[in-house]
Amino acid sequence: MRFSRIIIVSLLWVAISSVSIADFQPFQPLPAHPPIPSDNLMSPMKTELGKQLFFDARLSKNKTMNCNSCHNVMAGGSVPQAKPTGAGGQLAQRNAPTLWNVGFTTIYFLDGRATSLEAAIKEHLLADGAMAMANEEQVVDSIKQVPGYVEQFVALYGDENPVSYDNLSKSLAAYLRSLVTNDSAFDQYLRGKKDAISDAAKEGMNQFIEIGCASCHFWVNMAGPIPGLAFQMGEGFYELFPNHLGSEYDARYHLTDDTGRIKVTGDESDRYMWRVASLRNVALTAPYFHNGAVKTLEEAVKVMAMAQYKKRLPKATVEEITAFLHTLTGQFSVQTMPRLPAAGLDKQ
Amino acid sequence: MRFSRIIIVSLLWVAISSVSIADFQPFQPLPAHPPIPSDNLMSPMKTELGKQLFFDARLSKNKTMNCNSCHNVMAGGSVPQAKPTGAGGQLAQRNAPTLWNVGFTTIYFLDGRATSLEAAIKEHLLADGAMAMANEEQVVDSIKQVPGYVEQFVALYGDENPVSYDNLSKSLAAYLRSLVTNDSAFDQYLRGKKDAISDAAKEGMNQFIEIGCASCHFWVNMAGPIPGLAFQMGEGFYELFPNHLGSEYDARYHLTDDTGRIKVTGDESDRYMWRVASLRNVALTAPYFHNGAVKTLEEAVKVMAMAQYKKRLPKATVEEITAFLHTLTGQFSVQTMPRLPAAGLDKQ
Repeated sequence: MRFSRIIIVSLLWVAISSVSIADFQPFQPLPAHPPIPSDNLMSPMKTELGKQLFFDARLSKNKTMNCNSCHNVMAGGSVPQAKPTGAGGQLAQRNAPTLWNVGFTTIYFLDGRATSLEAAIKEHLLADGAMAMANEEQVVDSIKQVPGYVEQFVALYGDENPVSYDNLSKSLAAYLRSLVTNDSAFDQYLRGKKDAISDAAKEGMNQFIEIGCASCHFWVNMAGPIPGLAFQMGEGFYELFPNHLGSEYDARYHLTDDTGRIKVTGDESDRYMWRVASLRNVALTAPYFHNGAVKTLEEAVKVMAMAQYKKRLPKATVEEITAFLHTLTGQFSVQTMPRLPAAGLDKQ
Repeated sequence: MRFSRIIIVSLLWVAISSVSIADFQPFQPLPAHPPIPSDNLMSPMKTELGKQLFFDARLSKNKTMNCNSCHNVMAGGSVPQAKPTGAGGQLAQRNAPTLWNVGFTTIYFLDGRATSLEAAIKEHLLADGAMAMANEEQVVDSIKQVPGYVEQFVALYGDENPVSYDNLSKSLAAYLRSLVTNDSAFDQYLRGKKDAISDAAKEGMNQFIEIGCASCHFWVNMAGPIPGLAFQMGEGFYELFPNHLGSEYDARYHLTDDTGRIKVTGDESDRYMWRVASLRNVALTAPYFHNGAVKTLEEAVKVMAMAQYKKRLPKATVEEITAFLHTLTGQFSVQTMPRLPAAGLDKQ
């Protein structure tokens, strides 16, 4: 696995710069916007519609939950539950990741089973551990009962079958791609403001690289390649977790109960393979890991060093790396609350 | 009961105008702001803190619901459920009323058992059918675990016991008093723009007065006196519902299963007495009545005419009154989403 990391880093270097390898920087500031797929261009109207849908409980089985119930964009983009409860009363399969900066991801779900954000949204609406709607038709029907939605779909997608499951997922995806946290202290540092992060955080960054964390958690999203650069949408950047099996953490945090991507592919080489998670805003997204078993960032750092590199970190190093990770908390753009269209409210 | 209505209307007339009785107008435009109690003055910082608390699921037993879960301010201020389910899994006792324009009310809960908005909030946080927290201490502790909240409480309420149950309810109340929907079509009409409402709506208004609806649903909030004018905070404006017992609607919609204010006072004269509900934005707050049993506004109009005045309205009259009620939908001010302070997230 380490070898593939090196190839990717080299490819990136070739792709983006003509500087010498000595100047290679594993980290770059987050761009203002993620790559936008050509079949789902952004527009303010589409983003606004997606925001309404994101907050609309009419899209859930119990008519009580909305997307924000498990991915709270007013906070870090996730929720403090290890595994949130879906609108069907069933626990989600895994911890809910943040949706801030989600547009910088090439694959979706922690096991990478969706190859686009739009596909992931479609699955969420029907999953028991999420919105738990019965089927696509039920979702589309619930939108069709709201004239204020139908109007917007027509304006965006034309007269021919505008209210479709496809267009619904496109609208939601457009909103999610607007969720970008720019200008973290670390971004400022990367842009040249050397005092934007503390000396402890700088030492943490150096340790982060030296230990090997940056061999997966690199580049603009601290999660490897982003769409359109070395990797294309749908290509996954995975890593073994735990890489080192048998530490005390496996049992303490049930790290191997969930076998990861093998559940999708059936391929033995995918056992315990997981999508590399972005570390942006990681200080705001406790609890940690696919099962949400680890409650604090300090403990997550210790677990990672052991599970991936069989290293037991000194307390000071854990604190420095944690200080570094705190500098990855970005600025959350001010969002207006959507106004949810009326009617249909009394028909459901 | 009719007699008391007349006295109140007369008092209002004496209180506010020197025009002749012939000029008396039962309706007035909604003021830009509700009366603000002297012991809980508004400030932008307080309103902002209240908004954060309103959207924070850490204040609920299941850490999943927030105030907005049952009082959706992104919509009409309520939810489409007849009785929403609280954070303890228990159904709310009654339908959730809208919180838009809630500051214009003199008593709280449909049976008037709280005499201030602050008191109503305190009860909601602990009620099984609402936020279902164990006790006041647990609520206060959950705030104290979030440094970003503690900072704001100190800035607003000083160093001496700033994070208190009192101050929490004051902050939330300040936010709620900011929720005002001005400039409905009817307000524009009242201000002199005679074509702001349709002829059907005008005829509906006349019918509304003639039938007797306006003897309770009058004045700025279409719900009788507001605080500081004829009535003071804590004084309730109640009416019998059903006033005429025995119509087919009693059984069809279970109108008498809940005996109303008598449950609070034990006084037989309070059987089936209810706080007069505001009709502002009523087109957005289906389903209707204390038990949410009636799904459409048209049906609610029919039920009211029969239950209060033993009148069976012609279809055309129902449609006209409904058209009038639709003109009471106001403008919803654009609100920014709060940013919920981090930390404490991994400790609960």
